[in-house]
Amino acid sequence: MKSTSVRPDLVIVGSVALDSITTPYGSVEEEIGGSAVYASLSASFLCNTGIVGIVGKDFPEEARLLLKQAGIDLSGLVTANGETFRWRGEYSADMNSRKTLETRLNVFADFSPEIPTRYRTSSYLFLGNIDPRLQLRVLEQSPKCKFVAADTMDLWIQTAADNLHEVINAVDLITMTDHEACLFTKKSVIADAANSLISSHGVKYVLIKKGEHGSILFANDYIRIIPAFPLAKTRDPTGAGDVFAGGLLGYLAHEDKDPNLESITAAIVLGTIMASFCVEDFGIKALAATRIEQIARRLDAYQHFVSLYPPHLALS
Amino acid sequence: MKSTSVRPDLVIVGSVALDSITTPYGSVEEEIGGSAVYASLSASFLCNTGIVGIVGKDFPEEARLLLKQAGIDLSGLVTANGETFRWRGEYSADMNSRKTLETRLNVFADFSPEIPTRYRTSSYLFLGNIDPRLQLRVLEQSPKCKFVAADTMDLWIQTAADNLHEVINAVDLITMTDHEACLFTKKSVIADAANSLISSHGVKYVLIKKGEHGSILFANDYIRIIPAFPLAKTRDPTGAGDVFAGGLLGYLAHEDKDPNLESITAAIVLGTIMASFCVEDFGIKALAATRIEQIARRLDAYQHFVSLYPPHLALS
Repeated sequence: MKSTSVRPDLVIVGSVALDSITTPYGSVEEEIGGSAVYASLSASFLCNTGIVGIVGKDFPEEARLLLKQAGIDLSGLVTANGETFRWRGEYSADMNSRKTLETRLNVFADFSPEIPTRYRTSSYLFLGNIDPRLQLRVLEQSPKCKFVAADTMDLWIQTAADNLHEVINAVDLITMTDHEACLFTKKSVIADAANSLISSHGVKYVLIKKGEHGSILFANDYIRIIPAFPLAKTRDPTGAGDVFAGGLLGYLAHEDKDPNLESITAAIVLGTIMASFCVEDFGIKALAATRIEQIARRLDAYQHFVSLYPPHLALS
Repeated sequence: MKSTSVRPDLVIVGSVALDSITTPYGSVEEEIGGSAVYASLSASFLCNTGIVGIVGKDFPEEARLLLKQAGIDLSGLVTANGETFRWRGEYSADMNSRKTLETRLNVFADFSPEIPTRYRTSSYLFLGNIDPRLQLRVLEQSPKCKFVAADTMDLWIQTAADNLHEVINAVDLITMTDHEACLFTKKSVIADAANSLISSHGVKYVLIKKGEHGSILFANDYIRIIPAFPLAKTRDPTGAGDVFAGGLLGYLAHEDKDPNLESITAAIVLGTIMASFCVEDFGIKALAATRIEQIARRLDAYQHFVSLYPPHLALS
């Protein structure tokens, strides 16, 4: 999807950053990252995608070019006086936890998302992990969306739970890790947490992210377990959740039918496949090098991996 | 399957114990347990099952009765002078790890499995987690088996790796946790470990157990991801791996066709369902109270949970 002259099908709001990452497999310095970058690169394989975010004057021209070459509409990417958001993190030996070593918000501290007029009739919206007050601001500017998904993190659960409730209540799908869902709903079991998000916080779809163990979609009286794609090597998990969400929304926008349980489940499968590419190398490297044929092949392989028994197993 | 007058379809060799268990949800004292008990109770829903094990004179009559009432053939259960094997363990708050507080092997220290003549033509065999030297002894006595599966643990990997290699080389399917498979093969990635078990240790099927995250079956050029059944509450994970294996073997024996990839995958689904009952209460309580109708219902629900998209998803 290389055309940027049309209205984006999908608008992605989030951070744009320069990340310095260390994992047991190596490290990178000041690689382009942030939730909006990861999610939009993923979605760009599937639909016309526009970013809303902020960078500083030091944002590298080659990073901007990379996004443009992926067909991503950058008219919502503001360049402000000052420096781009920097993040530095280090993963544990098993990569199941990470330490933030340094966060310099820089221009991101004053981020106040403005949706370009041209984006305001886009049908699909992903609210990356930013302050829920800003997510609410975006929602006010995007009244015509067919489907909105939002991501969040423990920081907002702890500091802005009421605003986060408003976001969850307003969107169609919320993504959370199992830990975040339990923390926010004060439940100890994922299923209870998901049910509380649906019944008490008013969201229709809850997508619980379990990293290398895949994800679970909850809706009213509906559960789908979506395993991760089995990989020979994971080098850097950074951005995998955003790539997952970007693939999901990208697929829905690509299909552009009224999203239902079946299409959302299929979209999660696409997100799962996209995330599997992301983690194979540092930062956006693997994702940027991925070709649509590889995605199609992995999608096909995945469906074999998870196909348990044709046609239906019953006790006889 | 209530008849014990016939030759068992499935022979299960393993420990019979009295377990004292503490989890965040409570504790029990001297409940009947051990790999042979858990696996046979699980298999008994599906086929005629015989145990090979050892208990002391203090083994409670009601425990014996419970096994008999489940239709389990106890003619291979030796009663020796001395006390029954005791195990005491405590789980961490998140139940992802456990401490062994006490192990009294008692009569189990001298366990030398003898397969009753009547069992020697049984077609299916499960070697529960015991010393691989004893597992080899059982294999010598069971030359006619159609399908043999074995379980093991880190202790044997560390102390009897060569014997364990012989076992793995002789059986059709080995079950290991992801940690054990990596430890034994000295690989850091599950897929590499499984491939090494197949190519260097000569086993056909490798079943990697990931607890609440399900399991993965590896065979030559074949992977199947089998998610766990999503549960509202897990009270006690003790025995889940044995119940899993018991359900798997029980299903194969129930079908009694030459096991192939498809039937083994289906059997793993059955094992997955059986394990989901096991962990819902302490020790064997939940499993002993389960009815076949509940198993059939959960099997049906599970197939909805993991059914991702009819009929085939492709990028268009």
